[in-house]
Amino acid sequence: MTRALLVAALMITGPATADDKPDLADRYQTTVNKIIDATLAGNSSWQKLVELCDDIGHRLSGSKALDQAIVWAVKTMKADGHENVHTEKVMVPKWVRGAESCHMLEPRPMELKMLGLGGSVATPKGGITAEVAVVRDEKELKALGSGAKGKIVLFANRMPAYDAQKGGSGYGHTVRFRGHGARMASELGAVAVLVRSVTAYSLHTPHTGAMRYGDAKRKIPAAALTVEDAAMLERFAQRGKRVKVRLKMSAKDHGMVPSANVVAEIRGSEKPEEVVIISGHLDAWDVGTGAHDDGAGCVMAMEALTVLRKLGLRPRRTIRAILWTNEENGLKGGKTYARDHHEELSNHVAAIEADSGSFEPKGFSLRLTDPEASKRGVKTLGRVLALLHKTGATHAKAGWAGADISPMAKHNVPLMGLRMDGSLYFNTHHTAADTVDKVDPHILSKNVASMAALAFVLADMPGRLGD
Amino acid sequence: MTRALLVAALMITGPATADDKPDLADRYQTTVNKIIDATLAGNSSWQKLVELCDDIGHRLSGSKALDQAIVWAVKTMKADGHENVHTEKVMVPKWVRGAESCHMLEPRPMELKMLGLGGSVATPKGGITAEVAVVRDEKELKALGSGAKGKIVLFANRMPAYDAQKGGSGYGHTVRFRGHGARMASELGAVAVLVRSVTAYSLHTPHTGAMRYGDAKRKIPAAALTVEDAAMLERFAQRGKRVKVRLKMSAKDHGMVPSANVVAEIRGSEKPEEVVIISGHLDAWDVGTGAHDDGAGCVMAMEALTVLRKLGLRPRRTIRAILWTNEENGLKGGKTYARDHHEELSNHVAAIEADSGSFEPKGFSLRLTDPEASKRGVKTLGRVLALLHKTGATHAKAGWAGADISPMAKHNVPLMGLRMDGSLYFNTHHTAADTVDKVDPHILSKNVASMAALAFVLADMPGRLGD
Repeated sequence: MTRALLVAALMITGPATADDKPDLADRYQTTVNKIIDATLAGNSSWQKLVELCDDIGHRLSGSKALDQAIVWAVKTMKADGHENVHTEKVMVPKWVRGAESCHMLEPRPMELKMLGLGGSVATPKGGITAEVAVVRDEKELKALGSGAKGKIVLFANRMPAYDAQKGGSGYGHTVRFRGHGARMASELGAVAVLVRSVTAYSLHTPHTGAMRYGDAKRKIPAAALTVEDAAMLERFAQRGKRVKVRLKMSAKDHGMVPSANVVAEIRGSEKPEEVVIISGHLDAWDVGTGAHDDGAGCVMAMEALTVLRKLGLRPRRTIRAILWTNEENGLKGGKTYARDHHEELSNHVAAIEADSGSFEPKGFSLRLTDPEASKRGVKTLGRVLALLHKTGATHAKAGWAGADISPMAKHNVPLMGLRMDGSLYFNTHHTAADTVDKVDPHILSKNVASMAALAFVLADMPGRLGD
Repeated sequence: MTRALLVAALMITGPATADDKPDLADRYQTTVNKIIDATLAGNSSWQKLVELCDDIGHRLSGSKALDQAIVWAVKTMKADGHENVHTEKVMVPKWVRGAESCHMLEPRPMELKMLGLGGSVATPKGGITAEVAVVRDEKELKALGSGAKGKIVLFANRMPAYDAQKGGSGYGHTVRFRGHGARMASELGAVAVLVRSVTAYSLHTPHTGAMRYGDAKRKIPAAALTVEDAAMLERFAQRGKRVKVRLKMSAKDHGMVPSANVVAEIRGSEKPEEVVIISGHLDAWDVGTGAHDDGAGCVMAMEALTVLRKLGLRPRRTIRAILWTNEENGLKGGKTYARDHHEELSNHVAAIEADSGSFEPKGFSLRLTDPEASKRGVKTLGRVLALLHKTGATHAKAGWAGADISPMAKHNVPLMGLRMDGSLYFNTHHTAADTVDKVDPHILSKNVASMAALAFVLADMPGRLGD
């Protein structure tokens, strides 16, 4: 930054004082409005999303496409004029789906639409043919007991419809069978597991996602069926009809391979060693094109940096955009960053992640371990977010902030997550339907503006959240 | 019917008068309430739907499954104690999809989800590999002109979101490219056509449906892409990127084969030769299980008859339930009935069809060719439907009534269609997602009750609609 630009930036943001509390609005409202107005007037977030999703496509850890996405991100952030654009090496798991299928043999022949779960082992080459036992929860699994032996257990647990009042999706509650069903059923002698896709609304679209064997003694294959097919199998079972299926999976674990987080910065004018992270994750499941999950979060972070740079807004602290690798099946990007940067984390004044797609912005969550610091932090964050009334991202609350930034929690970094309307997110989550046609360019711009404005204020204001 | 039952029925429905207009409510409200209350208290429509859809599955004309469905319907209607249960032979086209696929080769390799359109010819064995030209309407196709030569034309026309105020889905307007796109593009030298699936909301689910070559000199293959993939190809084209795909289809026309309409009756007590038809179509596309389209309509007609029979309600005229064959790709069931029964059609006082799925009932449409008769008919129908306030099917309007009954229009048979909330119908229409989990048992019962009550009143009241 030239001296002239620095002076210009200081003129916009006003002089520093020891206590910013009385005058957050006086100090930053004009700048925040400027950031939002400029972003909504026109930006390249949509173009970036189309390049990432349409031109490169899906990009699971270890895939050529993810390597291409990393190259694209570096090139794009350099072209946008950012500082310190670089990659940071991360070793990630390479799991490859391979050919897979599921056929119902009884009570009538029919192909069932399925997606193997990430991390699952393969079946033997000829597949696994077995009767299906349907359970809806741990209690029914326990009741099944030795009746699970030699069977394929179907977890038919339903995800409730999105509840706008509660603001909850029921995802956290429902996803446990996707994550742990194989371990649970293998303990009872099951030969494979199927799970009902984790979504409240389906158009015969299977949803994949990560599974873990944990301390399971036997690793059995695990796959998701569509809501439609799982519900039919459940009805057959309820009607006393024997259900038999053949599951074939050729999934393979190729071990750990190199990947990278991508980093770019606007260096701070006064305290460049203090950092505000804005971020999304670049990897995506191997179906669809990862538009909402989490291409949108990536281009928000990329474009937020670009908007600030174009406006010549250099805050006191450094704003660091990070595009994480391997959120979906390992979290190695976030873990490696927290490990490699642990000595600097006391200087990380905030880490923001957007990983809930791109929908109408509502506000930001704050995750701080210390309850008292959390209370103070939410209060201060609320005052900052009040400045963002033009985008609607005004509501501050304590809560989960994001997976990639979560390894920094134990270092007391204030973690923040961009909160949005969640009514449609899980319809497309981890499916072939997670594509850019579902993303609204204007709403995406509102999210870019929200992230840019919050990052700027946090990076520039004298105090820290939670102080 | 025994004499005792006849007397009982007359006691319920009241005596006939020459002019029923002043006392429709006096005469029928109690009976209508009884029909609705009994139906909602418990009926077998859901069980029938599950048997038809889960146990038999999809049932395109010419398939073994459709033959099974016909056998099942006869058996079920006999078990329900109906009179004159029989089949009436209909010759129907047998079109078999076979293996099919579509792969994008440029700008990057990717499998595109597709469904061949019903009636399409196959590609050569190695497929058709060609550049894609994207058009959104006839105007853009015309502008493309000789640019279509040797290309695969993609019709990327969008179906608008359902408009509850207008009550319209935009289907009629949008579906023309599915039906006629191949003929239109072949005239310009195109080698195949792709159409964007006809739906306003997609989760990467392709929608099939019928297409016709009409007077086309060359028959070129036609398939539907998902909204997601069609939108991506459109974006590539708009960004100046060359799109190349390989389309493979092995669809085969096996000529005409025997099928049947299934008929069952409650014979009229006074004028058995006068008929009120209640109906749905038994055939369904070869994906999903045809739950909304039109398993629901079939079980409504079947169960409406059963509800009346169980209540011992025998109207003056005959109520004839018909499960049509071959609505989807030929309409041979409806056409053959109108031809074979043409001498009796002057005695058909009404033909009711339910072919819009099973959603919250709103009322019935009436189609009568003569404008004055239509006005009078809608007025009288409105007075009858006012009796159905317990189900909500109270609104009468002039309009389209149903495809299978449409060949009776030229014989001046009053045609009626059960109208329902249409906001979700096209999400699953002609897709693998048209399955019974989408059908609500209680709403299905309301539709059964609406159809039973209307049929009873029309079959019993002294006058006719449109008189």
